[in-house]
Amino acid sequence: MNPELRKDPVIDRWVIISTDRGKRPHDYPQPPRRVDPSKCPFCPGNEAATPPEVSAIRDPNTQKDMPGWEVRAISNKYPALRIEGDLNREGVGIFDKMNGVGAHEVIIETPQHDLSLSDLSIARISDVFGVSQGRMTDLERDPRFKYLMLFKNEGEAAGASLEHSHSQLIATPVVPKRVQEEIEGCKRYYAYKERCIFCDIVRQEMRDRERVVDENSDYLVLSPFAARFPYEIWILPKDHRASFHKMTREERNALADILRRALRRFRVTLNDPAYNMMLHTEPVGNSHEHHFHWHLELIPKLTRVAGFEWGTGFYINSTSPEQAAEHLREVRSEQLEAVTPMSTVQQRMRESA
Amino acid sequence: MNPELRKDPVIDRWVIISTDRGKRPHDYPQPPRRVDPSKCPFCPGNEAATPPEVSAIRDPNTQKDMPGWEVRAISNKYPALRIEGDLNREGVGIFDKMNGVGAHEVIIETPQHDLSLSDLSIARISDVFGVSQGRMTDLERDPRFKYLMLFKNEGEAAGASLEHSHSQLIATPVVPKRVQEEIEGCKRYYAYKERCIFCDIVRQEMRDRERVVDENSDYLVLSPFAARFPYEIWILPKDHRASFHKMTREERNALADILRRALRRFRVTLNDPAYNMMLHTEPVGNSHEHHFHWHLELIPKLTRVAGFEWGTGFYINSTSPEQAAEHLREVRSEQLEAVTPMSTVQQRMRESA
Repeated sequence: MNPELRKDPVIDRWVIISTDRGKRPHDYPQPPRRVDPSKCPFCPGNEAATPPEVSAIRDPNTQKDMPGWEVRAISNKYPALRIEGDLNREGVGIFDKMNGVGAHEVIIETPQHDLSLSDLSIARISDVFGVSQGRMTDLERDPRFKYLMLFKNEGEAAGASLEHSHSQLIATPVVPKRVQEEIEGCKRYYAYKERCIFCDIVRQEMRDRERVVDENSDYLVLSPFAARFPYEIWILPKDHRASFHKMTREERNALADILRRALRRFRVTLNDPAYNMMLHTEPVGNSHEHHFHWHLELIPKLTRVAGFEWGTGFYINSTSPEQAAEHLREVRSEQLEAVTPMSTVQQRMRESA
Repeated sequence: MNPELRKDPVIDRWVIISTDRGKRPHDYPQPPRRVDPSKCPFCPGNEAATPPEVSAIRDPNTQKDMPGWEVRAISNKYPALRIEGDLNREGVGIFDKMNGVGAHEVIIETPQHDLSLSDLSIARISDVFGVSQGRMTDLERDPRFKYLMLFKNEGEAAGASLEHSHSQLIATPVVPKRVQEEIEGCKRYYAYKERCIFCDIVRQEMRDRERVVDENSDYLVLSPFAARFPYEIWILPKDHRASFHKMTREERNALADILRRALRRFRVTLNDPAYNMMLHTEPVGNSHEHHFHWHLELIPKLTRVAGFEWGTGFYINSTSPEQAAEHLREVRSEQLEAVTPMSTVQQRMRESA
């Protein structure tokens, strides 16, 4: 069955029913895909095991889909949404559904199987963002797509299915609920104050300092006032910026610097946690330039989400953002630089946490 | 620090910052509390290890906080919200917070350490619901509380911190976002059609049958059209009912029957999964009687929530609700009756899944 988007008729929440990944009942819980590095589809030499590359940073003397790359973007072999087809909407009695049209790409962040994103140099991390920007610029030309969600799952506890470091980009034919809620909130605030709410948050947090983790010329790292999870942090441009993929090369280098430090703070303070990273950026079409402000949300995977959270949408956080910021802030520069690459064995241990 | 409710200024999402459960960074991930059954605070003989009971079904010849009970409700020793205090709201610059006032109770479902809810007889399960109804009737008299969330985490993967079978009841001073969204959806539909949307869903699903898992005189079990998770199921009253805790004894017995069968279907089909169960019922105050319809949501914990879900609020479900319903429906009556109590050892194995 082709992927299908279905809408909950009560709360307007879309889900993707994607049964190509389909399983029999006893296939759950899904075992992690432990691959011998020599057979890892994301390692150089195994390019034929993935769909063709759509973009790469590679040695100019090398060929597409061959070794010689530093960052490589491909279509996902098991896409949640399919690139082919039109956006037919259809009613099923009181229910609504839509073809599961979209794009699902993977950005392989390094040729080295054993390195994590935070092990890379600032220049290399900047390259990873550069490839993401390029893919977003390309995908936003497709009129079927309303939103581009860039995210990263690191470690099995955070939902990574392959250990080789990668991020993912999914183009969706509707603006996701969670992003739409942020946009509505930003609009309401802008209508009232004629200022961007995130700009005001940045200003207040830079004055208060107690939730600030780190900063550089262009970015602020903070633990948000109403953090859902222990040690949740956000990275925001200090100046007003609506679209992630329109950042300049200088802004990208500064982001690579601050993200690398943030991830290393996690590693020192939280003992190499699994984590999720999600980008919230302006939806395709440029209509929220004044009131929306892009940001990265980082959630180390330290606790389990349980019935209360599922039932209410409330979260119970057992570490205050002020405590979290303090613990992350107190990591010294020498400690950040002394972080050594994780071996695959360490990664596996972390993944079983 | 006393628990605090904080609101995200952009998307109006409340979180509970409850640092009494507070931890240093290296206390995460939190190890499960494996207790020797002889020291289990929920076992008979250890009543002194818990706060005093607030309600119980017990042998009339036995005393409060002593053995002799079948179902026992207590305050949570580590409450997410505290019963004492007033509801002060306060601004912190552009942020909002509120005292973490509420109630957090535990309903111990059986004196037997090794039994799960689905191992109990229909009459005993009905008793468990009876105690929950009583606690909800009592707590709704407190004018500070706007919502009563009854839920259950079974198995460590679903967030249970003690293995002895129990459910929890949290009274909150605001209507949770997730419930509020349902109410808004129900209101919109009612304004348009002058009918309850859940009544219409029940009618359509009973006609279509393909997502129906089970039914009895009073209840329908179905896998919802836009299910977020593989094998997610909902239990709904067939007739219009807004408030769970106002159900009659007969309705309660019928619910116990259908829930027991549903949980046993999970055990047979999905190999004793961990699961979450959440009740959505009318908020305190009776103002949604015509358009709201209570239901139980059950989510077996088979997959991990990852960055795409956190970032978008979209879910990717790799088993269609129709497949899930078919697999759950095909469990035969003899198989349902032949389910044997799980030993603690089996439970532990399941919990490490």
